[in-house]
Amino acid sequence: MAATSMEELVSLCKRRGFIFQGSEIYGGLQGFWDYGPLGVELKNNIKAAWWRTNVYERDDMEGLDASIIMHRLVLRHSGHEATFSDPMVDNRKTKKRYRLDHLVKDQKADVIAKVAEAMGESQENLPAVVSAMMKDTARAETALKEAGVRDPFSGEVGDWTEPRPFNMMFKTTIGPVADEDSYGYLRPETAQGIFTNFKNVVDSTSRRLPFGIAQIGKAFRNEITPRNFIFRVRELEQMEIEFFCAPGTDEEWHEQWLRARLAWWEAQGVPREKIQILDVPKEDLAHYSKRTYDLMYDYPTLGFEEIEGIANRTDFDLGSHTKAQGDLGIQARVEPNDDSVAKLVIPHPETNKPIVPFVIEPSAGVDRAMLAVLSEAYTKEVLENGSERIVLKLRPHLAPLKAAVIPLARNRPEIVEKAKSVKAQLQALGLGRILFEDSGNVGKAYRRHDEVGTPFCVTIDFDTIGQGEDTSLHDTVTVRDRDTMRQERVSIAELSTYLRSRLS
Amino acid sequence: MAATSMEELVSLCKRRGFIFQGSEIYGGLQGFWDYGPLGVELKNNIKAAWWRTNVYERDDMEGLDASIIMHRLVLRHSGHEATFSDPMVDNRKTKKRYRLDHLVKDQKADVIAKVAEAMGESQENLPAVVSAMMKDTARAETALKEAGVRDPFSGEVGDWTEPRPFNMMFKTTIGPVADEDSYGYLRPETAQGIFTNFKNVVDSTSRRLPFGIAQIGKAFRNEITPRNFIFRVRELEQMEIEFFCAPGTDEEWHEQWLRARLAWWEAQGVPREKIQILDVPKEDLAHYSKRTYDLMYDYPTLGFEEIEGIANRTDFDLGSHTKAQGDLGIQARVEPNDDSVAKLVIPHPETNKPIVPFVIEPSAGVDRAMLAVLSEAYTKEVLENGSERIVLKLRPHLAPLKAAVIPLARNRPEIVEKAKSVKAQLQALGLGRILFEDSGNVGKAYRRHDEVGTPFCVTIDFDTIGQGEDTSLHDTVTVRDRDTMRQERVSIAELSTYLRSRLS
Repeated sequence: MAATSMEELVSLCKRRGFIFQGSEIYGGLQGFWDYGPLGVELKNNIKAAWWRTNVYERDDMEGLDASIIMHRLVLRHSGHEATFSDPMVDNRKTKKRYRLDHLVKDQKADVIAKVAEAMGESQENLPAVVSAMMKDTARAETALKEAGVRDPFSGEVGDWTEPRPFNMMFKTTIGPVADEDSYGYLRPETAQGIFTNFKNVVDSTSRRLPFGIAQIGKAFRNEITPRNFIFRVRELEQMEIEFFCAPGTDEEWHEQWLRARLAWWEAQGVPREKIQILDVPKEDLAHYSKRTYDLMYDYPTLGFEEIEGIANRTDFDLGSHTKAQGDLGIQARVEPNDDSVAKLVIPHPETNKPIVPFVIEPSAGVDRAMLAVLSEAYTKEVLENGSERIVLKLRPHLAPLKAAVIPLARNRPEIVEKAKSVKAQLQALGLGRILFEDSGNVGKAYRRHDEVGTPFCVTIDFDTIGQGEDTSLHDTVTVRDRDTMRQERVSIAELSTYLRSRLS
Repeated sequence: MAATSMEELVSLCKRRGFIFQGSEIYGGLQGFWDYGPLGVELKNNIKAAWWRTNVYERDDMEGLDASIIMHRLVLRHSGHEATFSDPMVDNRKTKKRYRLDHLVKDQKADVIAKVAEAMGESQENLPAVVSAMMKDTARAETALKEAGVRDPFSGEVGDWTEPRPFNMMFKTTIGPVADEDSYGYLRPETAQGIFTNFKNVVDSTSRRLPFGIAQIGKAFRNEITPRNFIFRVRELEQMEIEFFCAPGTDEEWHEQWLRARLAWWEAQGVPREKIQILDVPKEDLAHYSKRTYDLMYDYPTLGFEEIEGIANRTDFDLGSHTKAQGDLGIQARVEPNDDSVAKLVIPHPETNKPIVPFVIEPSAGVDRAMLAVLSEAYTKEVLENGSERIVLKLRPHLAPLKAAVIPLARNRPEIVEKAKSVKAQLQALGLGRILFEDSGNVGKAYRRHDEVGTPFCVTIDFDTIGQGEDTSLHDTVTVRDRDTMRQERVSIAELSTYLRSRLS
C-alpha cells in the first residue's frame, strides 16, 4: 500500500503535527515549511539512517558540516553565478512571473503542441522545447502568444515577454558596510562546502584515494514557483556525498554508488520497483557531467520525479576551485581561477603523482525522502467491523515515536506513576522518542498512534499495579502492535528486551 | 585541567579537523566556520545530548524544526526590526566601522576612564557607558574624540562619527520580483519559529499547560565585528526551549529551569564552579523580561562570557504575535498587531479560560557549548618519561570517535580483515562513530586519539589471529584506555559488552 494522493499526505501531516506552512500566522511564506513535533523526529531519523549507512558503516568516508552563507567567489567559481538559473517569463497584463517550463507544462495539450511546433521540437520532449525557447527568446515570445498560452492566475491568454534566465541563489549583505564586495550567497547546494574543504579534510585525516566526504544540511533556492508541498521548496535539506577517486576508476564507482543508494532506499521502505533509473541522455547532461543517474520515485499525484541524483562530475569541481590549474592535467573544461589560494590535489594511488581526483556525487533531498517514506508507509485498511483505519507502516528505525506508554486511568496516581516509570525505563534504551501519553482514552490513542506510525503502544492498567482481578498479571503490561493490532501481555522485566529486539 | 588559552584550542581544532575557517580557500569569510570530520561528530553529540535531556527524558516537551527564512512580519512583530541592533561607530579617517562597545572595551584604561567620565558613568560599568552614549550620541561623538579613542586598525586616534544603531538581521529577497514587499529575514534566533507555531503544536498534540517546545537550528546575526573564534560568529546554532506556563507559576519554573540547565552543563563536563550566575540587574533587562539569568562560563583568554541565557519573557512574545490582543488580558506592553491571523491562547490549567501563557526561555549556543566542552576537556599531561601529551578528556557520550580499531600491520590481510570485522561489530552497537584506522603506526595513533578524545583504541595483532607466540591470546585484542593509558587484553566475544558498559 501507499498513499494515492498528495492531499492525503498533506492532510495527515498538518493534522498530526508533521509539517506546517512556514510563517503561517502571517499568511504563510511560499516554499517554506516548518517541521512539527513528529516531523522533526522523522526527519532526524532519516538523516541519522543516512549518516549511519554512509559515514559510520563505511571505512572510506568522512563527515562535514560547512556554513550556509558562503563567499561569493565560491559560487562564482562553482559556476552558480553564471548558470544556476531557471527560465522565467512575465505576463505584462497581470504582472505575474512564471517559470517557463512550468507555465508550458500546465497548458492544455493543444497549446503545448503549438508551442512545440513553433520551436521545431517534439511536444513529447518538453525540456528540449524549453531549451529551444531559451536559445531563441524572440521566437519564444511569439510562440507563447500565438499558441495562446494562458496565465494560470487569470485564466486568460497572456501578453508574454521574452523569456530570460533567473538566478535562483539567495543573496545577502555581509558586514556593516553595504558596498559591491560585501555580499555572499546562501548555498544553493551543500556540495560546494565539501569541495572548498577538500584540502582541510585530507590534511587533517591523512585520507588517500578513494574516499568520500558526506554532509547533511540546509540549502536554499529561490524557486520562481515553489509547489507540490515539500517537493519543490525554497529552503530544503540535502544529504550529499562527494566520493573522490582516481580517473579511470570513476565509472566503476558510479555503478557501485548506484547500487548502494538503491539498497539504502529499500532499507527505508522505498522499494526498488517504485524507483525508475533515468540514465540522463548525453544531450541533457550539464557540460561537466560524464554521466548522471536520476532516481525517479513514483510520488502520489506527481508521478515519477527525482528523489536523488547520482552524477559523475569528473574533475570539474575541484578543478574549478583549485589554484595552479594549468599544472594539474585537469580533464574537465574549467574557467580560469585566479582567486583560490589552495591546490586541491591528492596523490594518485598508483603513481603517487598529485592529481585532481574525479568525483561521484550521490545527492538526495531530506524533504523529498520524507515525502517518499511517508507515501510508502501510508496505508488505509478496512477492519473486520467494516470501519477504516489509517496506519503509517514506517520502518521502526524511522518511526517518530518508538512507543507510547499509556496509563489506563489518568486519575489514579499509582497507575500514572507506574506508566511514567515504564516510560523512563524504555527511554533509557536509547532507541528514540518514547511518549508518555495520558490523554485518557486508550482506543483513541491506539488509532492516533496508528496514524503517526508508532510501532508499539504499552498500556498500564489495574492488573499492572496488582489491583486487577488476575493477580498473576501484576507487573505486566499490554503491548499492542501497530501493524497486526494484536495485544500481548508482557512482564515489565522483559519489556526492554522485547522492544529492543523488535525496534532495532 | 582545562585549556589555558584560546590559541591552544584554535590550533587543535584546525590541526585535527574539528573546525575550519569558512570559505577559506578564497581568503575566508569573517564570522563563518565549517565543522570538519571530528567537529561535526562532537557538535551532533552535543545536540543529541541536549535533545535527549530536554525532549526525550521529559514528559512536558515537544520538538520543532522551523525554517530559517521567515516572513518579515514575524520579525517586525517580534520587535527585531526595530530593536535587534548593535551600536556602531565609523572612523572618517580610515573608513572602518566598529561595534561601539567593542571599540571602547579595547582601549587603554585611561582612555576608557575619560570616555566614562564624559558620559557621567562609572568606568566599571561599560554597558551603562555605552547605553548613555546611545542616548546622547552628540555627546558620545565628542567623548570619543576628546578621550583620544584609537582605531584598532590604524593604531591612531580616530575621527569618530556619532554612534548609531545597526540592525543585525540578514535580509534577502524572496521570489522572482524584487519589490518592497518581497524580502524576508534569516532568523536571528530560533525562538520566533516556536512562537509562530505555538497554535499548530497545541492543536496537533493536545498539550495543556505547563509544557515546552524545544528547537535546535541555525540562526544568523550580522555581527559588526565577529571575533574570538567560534564565540562571536555570524552564523550560529542555537538550542532553545520556550516553556509555557500559567502566570504566577513563572517564577518557580524559572528557578527549576536554572537548576535543570546547570545540571545539564555539569553532565557535559562543564562543572558548576566554572559557571557564574548573573542575575541581570533590572535596569539592564529588556523591557519584556521580568528576570534573566545569564550563565557565564569562564572561557580561556576571554574570561566569563555568556554560554546560556535563561529568561522569564512573560507573555510578551505570544502577546506580540497574537491577534485580538485587546481581549486577552496580556500583561506585557506589546505593540499593536493587525497582521496575525491566529489567536495564541491555551486554557488556564485552573480556570480553563483561554489565556496567553507566560514563557521561560533557556537559550544556549551550540558553538559556545562546543568551545566550553573542548576547553574543559583539554588536558596537558607530563608523562613519566618527561614527554608531554595532550589529551581531550571528553565525556564518552560526547567523544567524536568512540573507539579506533587499529590493525598492527597493514600489509597483513588477515589482520586487516579481522580489524574490519571488529570495527563492524562495534559499529553495530549504535554508540556512535567507530574508526577503522590503518595508518600503520600504533604509537602515533594512540597519541592522535588522545588529542581528539577517543576513549578507547582497540589493536588487532598477530596474537589476535592466532599467529602470535601466546596461542591463548587467539581472538583477543588490546584495549587501551585514553585517560589511564592502561592496556588490557579483552576477548573479541566480550568486547561489545566491555565497551558498551564503559561508553554509555
